[in-house]
Amino acid sequence: MTLTQSIHGIRAVLFDVFGTVVDWRSSISQEVASFAKRYDLAVDSEAFADRWRALYQPAMERVRSGNIAFVPLDQLHRENLDQTLMEFSLPNASEADVVNLNLAWHRLDPWPDVVSGLQKLKRGYQIGTLSNGNIDLIKNMARHAGLPWDAILGAEVARAYKPQPQAYLGSAAAIGFEPSQCILVAAHNNDLKAAMAVGFKTAFVARPFEHGPDQETDLFAEGEYDIVAQDFIDLAEQLGC
Amino acid sequence: MTLTQSIHGIRAVLFDVFGTVVDWRSSISQEVASFAKRYDLAVDSEAFADRWRALYQPAMERVRSGNIAFVPLDQLHRENLDQTLMEFSLPNASEADVVNLNLAWHRLDPWPDVVSGLQKLKRGYQIGTLSNGNIDLIKNMARHAGLPWDAILGAEVARAYKPQPQAYLGSAAAIGFEPSQCILVAAHNNDLKAAMAVGFKTAFVARPFEHGPDQETDLFAEGEYDIVAQDFIDLAEQLGC
Repeated sequence: MTLTQSIHGIRAVLFDVFGTVVDWRSSISQEVASFAKRYDLAVDSEAFADRWRALYQPAMERVRSGNIAFVPLDQLHRENLDQTLMEFSLPNASEADVVNLNLAWHRLDPWPDVVSGLQKLKRGYQIGTLSNGNIDLIKNMARHAGLPWDAILGAEVARAYKPQPQAYLGSAAAIGFEPSQCILVAAHNNDLKAAMAVGFKTAFVARPFEHGPDQETDLFAEGEYDIVAQDFIDLAEQLGC
Repeated sequence: MTLTQSIHGIRAVLFDVFGTVVDWRSSISQEVASFAKRYDLAVDSEAFADRWRALYQPAMERVRSGNIAFVPLDQLHRENLDQTLMEFSLPNASEADVVNLNLAWHRLDPWPDVVSGLQKLKRGYQIGTLSNGNIDLIKNMARHAGLPWDAILGAEVARAYKPQPQAYLGSAAAIGFEPSQCILVAAHNNDLKAAMAVGFKTAFVARPFEHGPDQETDLFAEGEYDIVAQDFIDLAEQLGC
């Protein structure tokens, strides 16, 4: 397989967001630290961020399993935040401050290569998000970080959380493309494998510090992806932009 | 009521698209003329555009009434196109040409004030579409015309066609705002009245040539809207941008 063959026919480059586009751990732990300082409380803000994020998959699993109806990620984040605050003995914050902390997910900073890589890619392809983040969250992040998406797709549009097949298929359908005309870019092997299983093309970009300096997962491509790129600028070059 | 009071609290400026943002009649009739020329057929291309558009409301009414499940506007446009082609005795075109003509709705040109008005508005507000057009259509139009939307909302996101209340309420919910924090901008009184009824703020911008030189409807504001503007630049100024 040559690269030219493998990328033939791609029209849309769609991105996982948390971890792939943005460095959620640094941004969240900074906001947690500010929050704790306001209440004069000591907290390991990175441990807090990790715990909050660890509740993410189980919360979505309640939707995926059919136990609860689809709800936007903001709502799951809030329930997980309430639990994390309790576990870290940080209760009694004002509702306004907790609402604001929950919105930290709307203000995540991108990895350094992201904005220029997306600008290059946009010249040759339609670019969009295929994230479990809800429309409001992704839109606000785009304004915050200057991310030039053509379309916000993913869970809220498809009414299904990744890695359910409908999350990918509903996103492709919403922009009128076949799965084979879409390439998913992600730093996570399980996401790419699920996209590949429904006919998407795939690109792996390692983000070895997503989980901090001791990260042990997703350091390498573990599947036969169409592209493995160093960062988004390399990805744009490999896609001919 | 002073203007300052009436616009207090607005966070998102949301736009009707067909007629308000883009001049669908000129764009569609030009594409119909090219299509007919390719087949060496004589056709009144403006009459064709008007007829195609006239089938728009009845088609959506089948969804609004519950007779059929929600389908994206592209599909309704295609069914209406097939009927219009038959009525104008233009059958026997290739499937590829008919598919391409149906996509003329993705390539509509904006009114002259639109791009600069939206750029101004984006500095002060979140801007988005609240159209019956589907996500793919609005996204492609944005790339074609350089429309800097923060978010594509409306029918496909809310799973309801305007003027059903859910089209407005579902769009506001998707970006996390109360209806009173959203202002709908439209050239159509019925759209604005429906938005007002569910708590939106409203702005009327007349587009007196939307339906050609003999237009008789929607020439004037027929409700107590928060803003009546000459065009999008005037709208931006009235909204303090």
